[in-house]
Amino acid sequence: MSHPLFGPELKLLLEENNAEAMSAFCESLHPATVVEALDDEYTPEQIWEVISPSSISTQAAIFEYLPLARQIEMIENARPQVGQLIGKMSHDDRADLLRRLPPRVVEALIRLVDEADRKDIATLVQYGENTVGSLMTTDYAWLPATVSTAEAIELLRQQAPDRETIYYVYVLDEPTRRVDNSPAPRRLLGVISLRDIILAPRQAMVRDLMDTELVALHFNDGLEKVTQIFQRYDFIAVPVVDEKYGLVGIVTHDDVLDVVTEEATESLQRQAAVGPIEGNYLEAKFWTVWYNRFKWLAVLFIFQMVTINVMAHYEGEMKSIAFLLVFIPLCLSVGGNSGSQAATLVTRALALQQIQLHDWVKVFRRELLMALALAAGLGLLAILRTWFLTPLSVETDLIIAGARFTHLVWLVTFSVMGTCVTGALVGALLPMLIKWIGGDPALMSSPFIATLSDVLGIVIYFNIVAMLFF
Amino acid sequence: MSHPLFGPELKLLLEENNAEAMSAFCESLHPATVVEALDDEYTPEQIWEVISPSSISTQAAIFEYLPLARQIEMIENARPQVGQLIGKMSHDDRADLLRRLPPRVVEALIRLVDEADRKDIATLVQYGENTVGSLMTTDYAWLPATVSTAEAIELLRQQAPDRETIYYVYVLDEPTRRVDNSPAPRRLLGVISLRDIILAPRQAMVRDLMDTELVALHFNDGLEKVTQIFQRYDFIAVPVVDEKYGLVGIVTHDDVLDVVTEEATESLQRQAAVGPIEGNYLEAKFWTVWYNRFKWLAVLFIFQMVTINVMAHYEGEMKSIAFLLVFIPLCLSVGGNSGSQAATLVTRALALQQIQLHDWVKVFRRELLMALALAAGLGLLAILRTWFLTPLSVETDLIIAGARFTHLVWLVTFSVMGTCVTGALVGALLPMLIKWIGGDPALMSSPFIATLSDVLGIVIYFNIVAMLFF
Repeated sequence: MSHPLFGPELKLLLEENNAEAMSAFCESLHPATVVEALDDEYTPEQIWEVISPSSISTQAAIFEYLPLARQIEMIENARPQVGQLIGKMSHDDRADLLRRLPPRVVEALIRLVDEADRKDIATLVQYGENTVGSLMTTDYAWLPATVSTAEAIELLRQQAPDRETIYYVYVLDEPTRRVDNSPAPRRLLGVISLRDIILAPRQAMVRDLMDTELVALHFNDGLEKVTQIFQRYDFIAVPVVDEKYGLVGIVTHDDVLDVVTEEATESLQRQAAVGPIEGNYLEAKFWTVWYNRFKWLAVLFIFQMVTINVMAHYEGEMKSIAFLLVFIPLCLSVGGNSGSQAATLVTRALALQQIQLHDWVKVFRRELLMALALAAGLGLLAILRTWFLTPLSVETDLIIAGARFTHLVWLVTFSVMGTCVTGALVGALLPMLIKWIGGDPALMSSPFIATLSDVLGIVIYFNIVAMLFF
Repeated sequence: MSHPLFGPELKLLLEENNAEAMSAFCESLHPATVVEALDDEYTPEQIWEVISPSSISTQAAIFEYLPLARQIEMIENARPQVGQLIGKMSHDDRADLLRRLPPRVVEALIRLVDEADRKDIATLVQYGENTVGSLMTTDYAWLPATVSTAEAIELLRQQAPDRETIYYVYVLDEPTRRVDNSPAPRRLLGVISLRDIILAPRQAMVRDLMDTELVALHFNDGLEKVTQIFQRYDFIAVPVVDEKYGLVGIVTHDDVLDVVTEEATESLQRQAAVGPIEGNYLEAKFWTVWYNRFKWLAVLFIFQMVTINVMAHYEGEMKSIAFLLVFIPLCLSVGGNSGSQAATLVTRALALQQIQLHDWVKVFRRELLMALALAAGLGLLAILRTWFLTPLSVETDLIIAGARFTHLVWLVTFSVMGTCVTGALVGALLPMLIKWIGGDPALMSSPFIATLSDVLGIVIYFNIVAMLFF
């Protein structure tokens, strides 16, 4: 769907081939708004036509906001034009783009950008995809410790760094060299905010103003570490260092927001036993999605087959009391539902570090009390339902079998309460157990808990049947 | 658990009553680190003892990082000391705190802070809890349009605003008054970043440098709007305006990160049919959690009771073919699992605006094809399992009943495939239907889909039984 405000206007400009107006359009609006106007109806060639009249840095800004799939299309379409543009993109987004292009395209592109950029790209592309290194940008502002704030402002003017990275300035040590004589990253001494530089007297020394109580990430840290740090401290950017505390880059707040959103999507999908599916729902590849859904359905299916054997074990009873089986789906579902609730709460609390493994006794006690209180409520509903609303055909069969009606009421009530408590305990403790043996607690998705509590529920049900009716 | 690094040290300082060292401790570390050291083992009085030797602004910074429940405890404990501290807290966090205190405590506190702060608190507390107004701070930096950048830096020095809010400076119109002669918020003309002020020539006019293509929020907008804007544009802060484009506050990036995390927790809980539970898992009130879990369990339980009537309808068949019932839990679970997957994917895609309601045909087609491809795989597993692994007792009963073994294979296979497809379609389309009639698609949680597909699964199962065996 075209942008309601600018879409029609832009179409007109394209038809008229009005380069001046298209340039004004791109230069005056926020790049994200331009991209909204340039939706799926535009071919890569048309997008090139719209953006090419404006300055290279505007083109790069707009290009950065395009979805990755679109960027790749556009590059494959018009390689010669792209060199300059890649040179102007912000460093982390550029590395992210290049990491996903086919190797041949990357090679061709890298030849088009200049020496300094080529090195920077090579550096960023080498980090693993889910590490801090892959998220960071090397485009930071820095100062030596020995300058005054007035000199600092002059130095920053010369660096004129990106909009997103000037607000924290990193104070670095003198350059050093590695054993093999290659230059090592300069050691990080402290950080000073642009605010403090502006507000301090003009002759104050950076050395005296900088904050040396640093929070830094290592380039090999996982992405959860990044979100934890940004959630704990309200930073705009966090420095990334190597083993020797040499500054190799920074991670900025906007990238963290994307990571948090992606992590939330992944948690939701895992909770429903979907292998994480990246990107847009409708645009994801059919067979990739199929694989990520089927593998879990198949595992669950095979696991659930245990219920066949468990029920076959009670086949003798089943023949004489077939009328009692109508309550089975109800009793089993209670365990699955209370188990999903407990598993979701505990898994999320583990992810947000609200609970630790050594809290398992507290979790167990709380879930046991909770499950008993929930079972009490559901038990009451079960009594009401079986007492007043048992289907007539079941009552008739009950009389024919010579069993007592109160036995039926107790069967349903105790089964419901039993599966509710079992489900909640399994749901709360299994994710902790998985974490304890070193796995990912999110593996214990709701469907897994439901399947497991189905098996336990059948055992509970038929044992109560055996106690009451035989 | 106490902080591994600073915990023991701090305990010692407290015992020695070493005010100087405690002050040095609080002043030199990041407030978030101080709060980590001040964990549950400390009473509110002890926390007061630790922080009170340091400056009021440090105390306020540390206080802001404490969990809300802890802040309330501390205030109720030592009201007289708190007035000054509240005066120094950042404006949005303060409003958030006051909104949750008992009204009597708030009144007592407000009398302790000075005039200007009292007005600001009254303004912020009045906004609804889930609106942009409740998230914003009134502590922003601003400039008139008619000054040069050199003058701008001087003006900003005088305002010396908070660390978090100086980086975007808002350019405001001349003051105006409302009809009743009260001062109206000044109209927002543009925004200029501190970076641009620093990098521009010293005589350039703010008027000429400012960006007038503004992205702004209204104070009554919902929180989803905030996260969408921050996810689309990589801003550090976004201005909040009233109907006449008067600036009433700003929302900063760090608050948005909290909102995104809270929203993710809420989505996960709703997907598992838990009424949203705020705050820490172990600290949440028992009966609040009970209520938020029980209400959904009860609704699901009552809904699932339909399965009793549906199964009772097939009671006649059940008596003669009790041995076939062992496959029911397996067939039902497939529908619940494929339904949960589809519901989670579609609900999340709706929340992230990857799909719109008018895409329902695309979603239907995709889920139908997907479900058929999933059913094909599961059908194959079902054939293998029933062909090679049917329990002997079931086979014997089958022979006694005079039925054919292939019929059993087809029963299980077709039931599994049928419930898989039905579950996925119900899971994908119900959230969209709920949204279409104006409800929240997240209401169609996985357990709801599982319950609904249980009912449909029983109908499918017994109809196939009737076709093949009678």
